[in-house]
Amino acid sequence: MKTISILGSTGSIGTQTLDVVRNNNDIKVAAIAANTNTDLIFRQIQEFSPEVVCMYSEKAALELKKKLSDGSITKTEVVAGMEGLITCATLPDVDTVVTAFVGMIGIRPTVSAIEAGKDIALANKETMVTAGHIIIPLAKKKNVKILPVDSEHSAIFQCLQGSAGNKPYKIWLTASGGPFFGRKREDLKNITPEDALKHPNWSMGKKITIDSATMVNKGLEVMEAKWLFGVEADDIDVVVQRQSIIHSMVEFTDGSIIAQLGVPDMKLPIQYALYYPERRMPTASRLDLKTLKEIHIDVPDPVNFPALPLAYEALKTGGSMPTVYNAANEVAVARFLDRKISFTGITDFIADQMEKHDLITDPSLDDIINIQNEIFAL
Amino acid sequence: MKTISILGSTGSIGTQTLDVVRNNNDIKVAAIAANTNTDLIFRQIQEFSPEVVCMYSEKAALELKKKLSDGSITKTEVVAGMEGLITCATLPDVDTVVTAFVGMIGIRPTVSAIEAGKDIALANKETMVTAGHIIIPLAKKKNVKILPVDSEHSAIFQCLQGSAGNKPYKIWLTASGGPFFGRKREDLKNITPEDALKHPNWSMGKKITIDSATMVNKGLEVMEAKWLFGVEADDIDVVVQRQSIIHSMVEFTDGSIIAQLGVPDMKLPIQYALYYPERRMPTASRLDLKTLKEIHIDVPDPVNFPALPLAYEALKTGGSMPTVYNAANEVAVARFLDRKISFTGITDFIADQMEKHDLITDPSLDDIINIQNEIFAL
Repeated sequence: MKTISILGSTGSIGTQTLDVVRNNNDIKVAAIAANTNTDLIFRQIQEFSPEVVCMYSEKAALELKKKLSDGSITKTEVVAGMEGLITCATLPDVDTVVTAFVGMIGIRPTVSAIEAGKDIALANKETMVTAGHIIIPLAKKKNVKILPVDSEHSAIFQCLQGSAGNKPYKIWLTASGGPFFGRKREDLKNITPEDALKHPNWSMGKKITIDSATMVNKGLEVMEAKWLFGVEADDIDVVVQRQSIIHSMVEFTDGSIIAQLGVPDMKLPIQYALYYPERRMPTASRLDLKTLKEIHIDVPDPVNFPALPLAYEALKTGGSMPTVYNAANEVAVARFLDRKISFTGITDFIADQMEKHDLITDPSLDDIINIQNEIFAL
Repeated sequence: MKTISILGSTGSIGTQTLDVVRNNNDIKVAAIAANTNTDLIFRQIQEFSPEVVCMYSEKAALELKKKLSDGSITKTEVVAGMEGLITCATLPDVDTVVTAFVGMIGIRPTVSAIEAGKDIALANKETMVTAGHIIIPLAKKKNVKILPVDSEHSAIFQCLQGSAGNKPYKIWLTASGGPFFGRKREDLKNITPEDALKHPNWSMGKKITIDSATMVNKGLEVMEAKWLFGVEADDIDVVVQRQSIIHSMVEFTDGSIIAQLGVPDMKLPIQYALYYPERRMPTASRLDLKTLKEIHIDVPDPVNFPALPLAYEALKTGGSMPTVYNAANEVAVARFLDRKISFTGITDFIADQMEKHDLITDPSLDDIINIQNEIFAL
């Protein structure tokens, strides 16, 4: 029996994690946390009876307490705010913390979970992007496993399982290219939030769907890969795989390339992270190789989609620059969804913030959060 | 410093093994063996100074001794026949025996090598096809490694490296389909040996090139995979990958598929087998993912290419039936190359011999060799 805590249980990764839990019968959900969605978390409490529930929003926590006040659910304690998230992340019985929050909110609880010796099923890529230089040494020191949940990093992690100490020669991240691959900048300017929220392959949250359309998501994944797999920016390359069937690849010194393929369904990497290294029957469907016919591989377009070259620039600059890339993107995506800036304005804003930034070469967790808050306040 | 013996040093795998040796500088070639090609083996002696050389043909051995009689090469002993092959396979200093002979001639020396505790770099698939039930338990008992050299089995072996005890759900062998994929039986009847000897992707010996054109090669590989990877016939499936870029795949219980890709160059799997688990810079070129564009996957055609369904039938029947499939094919290929039977006559002959055969359920090595000799005498 494995005991987990899910930070972000009402989001896309959170609900799919609960699907995986439902499909197996030997995982106990000790804690769940969400931002504001009390309706869904109330139903999750009824189904999974966690010991602790955190609402990041204090207002939502009060609302949830009211919902629970009829006395039918007595076992579950309701906590709130960052302190509440940290309680969920460090609960004594918990083996693995699923960090499924979107955005930089995930950093502090992730650090606390690692300090408490919990394995991390990592879906919050911003943590690794901005604080990889802190997280990875800490995880090593505490001897905890960082199990990637992102389909691409899970693929790389799977491809590296048999590496037998051979360092990867190159990591090939695959990108779906998003809904606008092939289009030109003039045309991209007029994209609406509604257009951008339609992803051809993956069912995901809003923010990551926009990130996928701009290719910022791939930029963040390149940065994440550096820390997760201990490679340099030049050892990471990206190809576009429109079907999202090859989830990523590792090329070894001898020219041999190991790839991981499967249907585009997040329940696959979630289940692998939860049961690693054991593999179980899938909650998702199987890839039908016999009807596949063709696997397409294209190259990214750095001119019309500058998010990827900007990410390489941020990664090579290092220090606090990835934090700027990420925080500027969070702000820009929110503005785009509010129709305050255009689709191409997202990467323009990132480039602008990166240019203005005074680099801190080895930022502390406080530095990272301060830089983020400064950009959030813009 | 690794010391190897190459059985079949003048053939396609043998010469490419020597290319790998040449490209590195820490493998000693202690013994080489060939059938009749004294010219090439003479040059190999000059370059690699083996301790022992075997010519399987007694006549060729005499010829080689004459070539060496000028006294400039004094270190190399010349041996002959099956006894000579066994000497090469069991030389005390040798760590790994590369079994690169074509056909059933490889069985006895392979068994002797395993009994002598040598690791086997296995390129002679007939050994595993006909005597897998003897070889695999013997290798386990003697604690020797069987390292597959066939590109497909090397791929599967690589994909299984990170399996962490998870049994494969399905093994996906890829087939190039050979030069005649897509053609109909009426059309295949008129194929000449010259047509059949042109393989689109691989540079190989004559026999395996014909086997590739008939798909018998894939049939043998299905049988070999059963023994190498401890799976049943129903757990092995075949897809056609015309480009020979995906060399094979393993599907796990959870639906995740691990694939190995690379250029179609035998030096890659040869080097991997020789240095396993270490990976070195390639003697071959690298696959250029960025110019690849598409990877095609087709399904085999069991009607016009009956070799594959016949192989499954032989594998499921078991016992001595795979020996019949293989020996009948060896005879039929020779007859086809001599223009005595048509291209489609090859699989007709195999089917005919399989139908006539009185099954031995658990054949000994002698049974296998007797059955083979009976078919060879037809």
